[in-house]
Amino acid sequence: MDKYFEEAIAQARKSFSEGGIPIGSVIVYQDKILGKGHNKRIQQGSVVLHGEMDALENAGRQAAEIYQHSVLYTTLSPCPMCTGAILLYGIPKVVIGENKTFLGSEDLLKSHGVEVEVLNNQECIDLMDSFIRLHPEIWFEDIGEPG
Amino acid sequence: MDKYFEEAIAQARKSFSEGGIPIGSVIVYQDKILGKGHNKRIQQGSVVLHGEMDALENAGRQAAEIYQHSVLYTTLSPCPMCTGAILLYGIPKVVIGENKTFLGSEDLLKSHGVEVEVLNNQECIDLMDSFIRLHPEIWFEDIGEPG
Repeated sequence: MDKYFEEAIAQARKSFSEGGIPIGSVIVYQDKILGKGHNKRIQQGSVVLHGEMDALENAGRQAAEIYQHSVLYTTLSPCPMCTGAILLYGIPKVVIGENKTFLGSEDLLKSHGVEVEVLNNQECIDLMDSFIRLHPEIWFEDIGEPG
Repeated sequence: MDKYFEEAIAQARKSFSEGGIPIGSVIVYQDKILGKGHNKRIQQGSVVLHGEMDALENAGRQAAEIYQHSVLYTTLSPCPMCTGAILLYGIPKVVIGENKTFLGSEDLLKSHGVEVEVLNNQECIDLMDSFIRLHPEIWFEDIGEPG
């Protein structure tokens, strides 16, 4: 398995082990991890730090040229917010662990020319399935849906 | 002037006075401010805390039903990331200070049924004009554009 995707899963596992939503992400520029992170709704009470946002935040301030040559790895299909962040910063490629438990705004990404690769990785699916079974109300809150 | 919009401008002024990007935002539910904030790129080195995101973050965890009956006030037209956050949480109305210095994803908001009101307030325009003149490179970084 791609070592960067493996790192995104490790972030998802870490979040799950902390009682949090198991979504992890890594942003990579020229074979170097700029930042990695995971959903922080439970751990920090954050409503903006989805996995992808946390990875971007941990990467810190970067010039447009860096983002425009980076790849974002995420264990779950990106929601509208994370999709918007990808478009804002002009990230040209997104590798997605799975879109079975939640289908985000992949069409919007593609319509802006972003390359989208979906792996449908079983461990990503299992992590989300487990969390949603345990805490459906937290998951619905995270995606802005009535419980 | 609407007292909530006035509070959003106060947040923008505060950020400017701190040397930061002068964009402020307030989220209001049933005549009560849930959260307010401003761009934190300079103050916290944040790449995700645009004004709108900071207001949402400061509002803390809310149920979908709350967001779906809230109004977001922002001094500047929302970028793709902030637009995505508005869509994720189903906020039905956005009041925008101005869209002259930067036009965000207002069409995407409208296409999802979000009510968009643009005030073209002169103080909001002046704050942004001043900041962009002082620090164009920081502004371009904030919107993911090559300097």
